[in-house]
Amino acid sequence: MHRNATEAQIDAVCKRIEDAGNTANVLPGATRTAVAITGNETGIAAERFLGMPGVIDCVAVTNACRLVSREMHPQRTLVDVRGVTIGDGNCTTIAGPCAIESRDQAFRSAEIVAASGAKLFRGGAFKPRTSPYSFQGLKHEGLKLLDDVKREFDLRIVTEVRDSETLDAVELVADVLQIGARNMQNYSLLEAVGKRRTPVLLKRGAGCTLNELFLAAEYILSLGNKQVILCERGIRTFETMTRNTFDISAIVMIRHHTHLPVIADPSHGVGIGWAVPPMAKAAVVAGADGVMVEVHPQPWSALSDGQQALTPEAYAQLVREMNELAAWRSKQPTVIPAQ
Amino acid sequence: MHRNATEAQIDAVCKRIEDAGNTANVLPGATRTAVAITGNETGIAAERFLGMPGVIDCVAVTNACRLVSREMHPQRTLVDVRGVTIGDGNCTTIAGPCAIESRDQAFRSAEIVAASGAKLFRGGAFKPRTSPYSFQGLKHEGLKLLDDVKREFDLRIVTEVRDSETLDAVELVADVLQIGARNMQNYSLLEAVGKRRTPVLLKRGAGCTLNELFLAAEYILSLGNKQVILCERGIRTFETMTRNTFDISAIVMIRHHTHLPVIADPSHGVGIGWAVPPMAKAAVVAGADGVMVEVHPQPWSALSDGQQALTPEAYAQLVREMNELAAWRSKQPTVIPAQ
Amino acid sequence: MHRNATEAQIDAVCKRIEDAGNTANVLPGATRTAVAITGNETGIAAERFLGMPGVIDCVAVTNACRLVSREMHPQRTLVDVRGVTIGDGNCTTIAGPCAIESRDQAFRSAEIVAASGAKLFRGGAFKPRTSPYSFQGLKHEGLKLLDDVKREFDLRIVTEVRDSETLDAVELVADVLQIGARNMQNYSLLEAVGKRRTPVLLKRGAGCTLNELFLAAEYILSLGNKQVILCERGIRTFETMTRNTFDISAIVMIRHHTHLPVIADPSHGVGIGWAVPPMAKAAVVAGADGVMVEVHPQPWSALSDGQQALTPEAYAQLVREMNELAAWRSKQPTVIPAQ
Amino acid sequence: MHRNATEAQIDAVCKRIEDAGNTANVLPGATRTAVAITGNETGIAAERFLGMPGVIDCVAVTNACRLVSREMHPQRTLVDVRGVTIGDGNCTTIAGPCAIESRDQAFRSAEIVAASGAKLFRGGAFKPRTSPYSFQGLKHEGLKLLDDVKREFDLRIVTEVRDSETLDAVELVADVLQIGARNMQNYSLLEAVGKRRTPVLLKRGAGCTLNELFLAAEYILSLGNKQVILCERGIRTFETMTRNTFDISAIVMIRHHTHLPVIADPSHGVGIGWAVPPMAKAAVVAGADGVMVEVHPQPWSALSDGQQALTPEAYAQLVREMNELAAWRSKQPTVIPAQ
Repeated sequence: MHRNATEAQIDAVCKRIEDAGNTANVLPGATRTAVAITGNETGIAAERFLGMPGVIDCVAVTNACRLVSREMHPQRTLVDVRGVTIGDGNCTTIAGPCAIESRDQAFRSAEIVAASGAKLFRGGAFKPRTSPYSFQGLKHEGLKLLDDVKREFDLRIVTEVRDSETLDAVELVADVLQIGARNMQNYSLLEAVGKRRTPVLLKRGAGCTLNELFLAAEYILSLGNKQVILCERGIRTFETMTRNTFDISAIVMIRHHTHLPVIADPSHGVGIGWAVPPMAKAAVVAGADGVMVEVHPQPWSALSDGQQALTPEAYAQLVREMNELAAWRSKQPTVIPAQ
Repeated sequence: MHRNATEAQIDAVCKRIEDAGNTANVLPGATRTAVAITGNETGIAAERFLGMPGVIDCVAVTNACRLVSREMHPQRTLVDVRGVTIGDGNCTTIAGPCAIESRDQAFRSAEIVAASGAKLFRGGAFKPRTSPYSFQGLKHEGLKLLDDVKREFDLRIVTEVRDSETLDAVELVADVLQIGARNMQNYSLLEAVGKRRTPVLLKRGAGCTLNELFLAAEYILSLGNKQVILCERGIRTFETMTRNTFDISAIVMIRHHTHLPVIADPSHGVGIGWAVPPMAKAAVVAGADGVMVEVHPQPWSALSDGQQALTPEAYAQLVREMNELAAWRSKQPTVIPAQ
Repeated sequence: MHRNATEAQIDAVCKRIEDAGNTANVLPGATRTAVAITGNETGIAAERFLGMPGVIDCVAVTNACRLVSREMHPQRTLVDVRGVTIGDGNCTTIAGPCAIESRDQAFRSAEIVAASGAKLFRGGAFKPRTSPYSFQGLKHEGLKLLDDVKREFDLRIVTEVRDSETLDAVELVADVLQIGARNMQNYSLLEAVGKRRTPVLLKRGAGCTLNELFLAAEYILSLGNKQVILCERGIRTFETMTRNTFDISAIVMIRHHTHLPVIADPSHGVGIGWAVPPMAKAAVVAGADGVMVEVHPQPWSALSDGQQALTPEAYAQLVREMNELAAWRSKQPTVIPAQ
Repeated sequence: MHRNATEAQIDAVCKRIEDAGNTANVLPGATRTAVAITGNETGIAAERFLGMPGVIDCVAVTNACRLVSREMHPQRTLVDVRGVTIGDGNCTTIAGPCAIESRDQAFRSAEIVAASGAKLFRGGAFKPRTSPYSFQGLKHEGLKLLDDVKREFDLRIVTEVRDSETLDAVELVADVLQIGARNMQNYSLLEAVGKRRTPVLLKRGAGCTLNELFLAAEYILSLGNKQVILCERGIRTFETMTRNTFDISAIVMIRHHTHLPVIADPSHGVGIGWAVPPMAKAAVVAGADGVMVEVHPQPWSALSDGQQALTPEAYAQLVREMNELAAWRSKQPTVIPAQ
């Protein structure tokens, strides 16, 4: 309350708290009086009080996440991707091209990925692109090629679903449904995948806080799909030397505050091929449950995001190094401390 | 090219440019050699060159927007909302509550809006909310109430469409289809409204650049719907004293670089009721084609965003002041200079 | 406290609060127990508690600004610049070139400014520049030219002081000491001007929050110099179409939360000459106590920041329009509401 | 040039380029004509052209950094700190408390640091603080204590210099002069340390781009002090869960684009003690030449930034792990690729 707030103003605030079934605790201080609200389980909207005479500020202290929060559910979630477990302490590699471009490109990419020992293959059939004039993916034909890859190699498919209309078709092929960064707050889509049981990889929006990411995941969990993996892929900042600012501390925060596994996507995070390996390794050491990288048989001929794809040689070296770091990591006392 | 780039490296770049059907112009400079690309109409993806030996940087100079750009289409677009023209030099007021909450609240709000002389009524039936536990709108029942408002008052309806599934239902009621900030890059939804002919109000995403906003509009225009209004509603920055940073220069840039009308939404922009009027007036003077504000019969009892809604009294005063400023503005030589 | 915090952990927190001479208020809630601290006048550093077992978060609610806050000092500050009052409800124009380049340029600029009726002239003698190879100002020779302008015209001088070493020399000429945005948190310089009695124009750093701006001003006031004017000149965001994002809501927040006058600097805010007038006018309507704009007899030949300077013609029109808006503004009931 | 630019407008641009002694290259394209400037060594200010009739945009392609750029000086800089080399491929640990608080605290901290095998001790005597009411350091008494530590232990001293006035006193004690993030663009201070020969640790400002960091270093190098170490300590973004966003990709970019060593400061980067170790390890793997961390004998009783200091136990474990990772790193083919 404002330092000059009247008794009547304080009483009005208390009344509004109690009318909502909660408890008001009046705390006179050195310069101001505070009113603490207790008894509420999910937080009270600040809008109920801001604007009332004498009210200066309204600070939320309750955690709005019931299902995602590690405080509520200390047990870590294990996500099962057709026999591959994510979140068990190992570091899973997910790799493949940005977009599926042709049968030849898909199969050559899959060979590279399978040869590295990775078990999860990424590749976009439906590509959300900033410009309507950019390549939008092969769509259903791309799904068909992913299905062929799946039958041919011992690989699980991670691919993006762009809307509810194509969800059935994508789910037929996908072992993991990816929600892209631009759709992180597309709540209709979150609700749609929340009703399915296929694991979901939820990418953080480039302009979204971690708390918003947690609440987006809360949408999916609250509808019954508990198999959610979070993904850090870079946030938008004033720095232009990298495509985004790849926020490695997000990995640490996600593991500390939630029980969900977290995957790092350094390819989108920095957007520059030669800078991907050091960032991927940093993510492993910071505690990521997995790393997703783009690899392409010929990055310079890629139809999308070629500048951030690794060559087959760089990819092979990176996987070897990440495996060594993951092995090193597993021998250390703790990666991220418990709350 | 790197200052030590070899002839062979420069030749390889030129070859790739010419293989794509464009022209390479080699420009030796004081410390580096540049290669300029001409003959391309829509820009060449940087990924084709970044990563090639000897290449240091790749700078786009072509405007990627063909349909939205004022350089290409100097004539300003007029949007017709059932007889009300937006973009003709006047400043249109759009007002109403954040969400439709009940028949009584909808009708009392509509009375306030109609009494002010405004012709467009806003109100959400489908509300995208950060938390799954927040009020999500009355949905189809809310649309029904909006339809009742439309029949009762001389008001056009601006309401948000959240997904393709509910587009038909929303379009039956809406005179303007609003695409929310979180859906600005939901390309499936952009494509869906691009195929309709109802005017679209496209809000800038909080983490999106103006160039991305223009390209999102380009999706809609490229599918045939030319009746697009852009909307600035605040961007996400490090400042926390306001909900967002309301970027008034965006209004100036939109009017300079595009031919589409632009609406300001200071309610979401600052998120604090008492700060909305000065920002709304600033937007008028900066050249907005319209201002959208939230008003509620009782802001403190609103089910969403009450802290940013105006009281009926504050709203009435604001409309009067905005009208005076718009009249003043129309007498000045130019608001935003031509390119 | 964490929902599983033990009694002993809560007791340890209370003990630490009471050992510091404050009062601990234990508030058991639905899921967690909160401990409110009262009795402290300036806020307690969160670091005293974060890291203690069982502590989840520590939220500051006390206002750290004692002298700058309008809550503490409701009376608005009037700054007297040799007979010109800033902060009395009028809107003061400050104009001139970015840098003083020559006697001819300085005098031609001063003529333009004086002819418009403005009373304050800006011009840099010591210019902080991002690159060491850019023009750094005429330094002491520039001060001499400013002094000549001051003697020749009825103009007060606003010029930047870059360091304590040159403060004496600058103060001999300056009617207002400008602290540049890059020096907003140069506390040695803030302390130096805090000990003087010449008015100070303190620019908000491009990466600084309003709360940090208020605390920077608090440094100056706490040393006895109460004649402080705050200045919004744009913040750094992800948007690249403008030089900075000119945060007009900052004007509203400064007037609401502090008693100090606020000046808008749209020239640095947007950095594009043709976009300055609409932003300047928006700032007037939003409640600025003054507007500072760059004008140059020949913008295209300026040695610094020419792209954002107004031509003499554009400047003359802008001053006329700003004066009309300021007159209009003074007739309205309130610009920014009291707290 | 604008697509409708006239011949005369293009000619005027060419004339201005040639009048400045450079060469204009006219490049007619599919929709627009571009004019490329060659023959300039340091870039031409865009302000010379923006605002000219028919000009739409002006894009800088020249690298403004002559001395800092690795393109110009491929040989990596080695910084010699009294016998300890930074930048030779090893990873140097710098550790100590945020501020020197007392003889006892300084010596106990130094013991912890020396026991870990680290050779560089950090500790602030002059502390720039956001609020004038926060602890500002012991100042000259703190320097005296640092000098005592230096005599007692085999440790080199890294401490901040806040202004030119105290530079002599600080330089008597410091083996490395630290320029704090808030002073990164305090050009008077940069010039002052540029004239000395003591190594400088230049911290990136929280709101500053990497390019601005490089240009700030360019100030120091251009005055003759070549012993400059750059430091990433987190940037300001919209995310509030961490104190700053610790930009690990900055380490990769600095090593790629400059020849200067780079130190990571994860303590300020994340600002939360338990999150420092994973970020520190990530920085090592990403290629940092050193890591600076805050350690305090009793973090919870620290007079500043205690929430981000490590306990002696956590510090000891971290140093052990960082050393293992640095050893692993030195066996890999390359960390950051050459340009």
